[in-house]
Amino acid sequence: MFITFEGIEGCGKSTQIALLATALQQAGQRVLLTREPGGCPIADQIRGILLDAANTALVPMSELMLYAASRAQHLAEVVSPALAEGVIVLCDRFSDATRAYQSFGRAIDRQVIEALNSLACDGISPDLTVLLDCPVETGLGRARQRIDSTSGPREERFELESLAFHQRVRDGYLQLAAEEPGRFVIVDATVQPAQVASAISDAVLSRLAVSV
Amino acid sequence: MFITFEGIEGCGKSTQIALLATALQQAGQRVLLTREPGGCPIADQIRGILLDAANTALVPMSELMLYAASRAQHLAEVVSPALAEGVIVLCDRFSDATRAYQSFGRAIDRQVIEALNSLACDGISPDLTVLLDCPVETGLGRARQRIDSTSGPREERFELESLAFHQRVRDGYLQLAAEEPGRFVIVDATVQPAQVASAISDAVLSRLAVSV
Repeated sequence: MFITFEGIEGCGKSTQIALLATALQQAGQRVLLTREPGGCPIADQIRGILLDAANTALVPMSELMLYAASRAQHLAEVVSPALAEGVIVLCDRFSDATRAYQSFGRAIDRQVIEALNSLACDGISPDLTVLLDCPVETGLGRARQRIDSTSGPREERFELESLAFHQRVRDGYLQLAAEEPGRFVIVDATVQPAQVASAISDAVLSRLAVSV
Repeated sequence: MFITFEGIEGCGKSTQIALLATALQQAGQRVLLTREPGGCPIADQIRGILLDAANTALVPMSELMLYAASRAQHLAEVVSPALAEGVIVLCDRFSDATRAYQSFGRAIDRQVIEALNSLACDGISPDLTVLLDCPVETGLGRARQRIDSTSGPREERFELESLAFHQRVRDGYLQLAAEEPGRFVIVDATVQPAQVASAISDAVLSRLAVSV
């Protein structure tokens, strides 16, 4: 089972994916927790280029291709082998992030995005996608606290984008969820982390039950 | 005018492109000498990933997308602005290298290569491509001397490929030249550097005359 976590900066993905991993492991499941961009040494080198706030000159097409390169490497080296062994793979961001940030956010043609995603994914798609939804002001507020405290994961180049950009990304995620209601579960990320975790584990357990 | 230089490792591209740049500058032309992968800071970061001999795990699709990402960035930041100002751009490797190494060398579907090249190039293609042709034994012999002396440009990850790989690349370059005889000029790279330089400048000057 391949479960992806999506949402704007500061929506709480890192916290929630770790909580779900622990819950699944306690239930006796084998779990692999990974993330994009990155997830293996070569993809992490690509991640370094993508998230470096100094790389302001990065053009949208090059950015899109770097995400696709990172995804192709990560799938081949990490995700596909784990899925083949029956491990539940939890991935922090995946192809929907490219749709939301590069198509809705940067206005790259959706067909171009789909073509590159398709080449990168080689037939693999998530069984379930958890969309942690919250207003951009809430998410960015949390993300900026993270910058100030210099702890936790950093996605600086995107945190520096305008509020309007992040609003397009949030709206894009909601549209993607509406396009594929069977794959997406939308979770309200404004409530307490324990409540969010409970909503996620309910969704995942009902899917696991179905797929067993 | 956009002139690209192609050929297998050790064919003498770096030497010849520098000689042509000097000759054109002495003839009063404005010249920009650049290279791929790389050619600007972000593309140079991508180059670092592509040519690092430690990155043996890099899968062909990810490699292809990294070349495309480097190309999109380099064109947008360096090549397009220079061409728009009437500068003659000399580029050490370009889209034919992707065709030769990733399609003929790595056996990635040519249509996939063309689709990515097309997205990366955004309508720009070379006016002239100089193919420096020599037997793989000659080229690799020179390239390995370069490794031993630890001077000069290094393309280690490719220098470590098999002789059969480089043979496919050489044959691929010759096939590409046969497909587009109007754009390519094939130069024998086994003769003395001064003779090679003379053959190249003849080809370039005749094109410049035509295009004036």
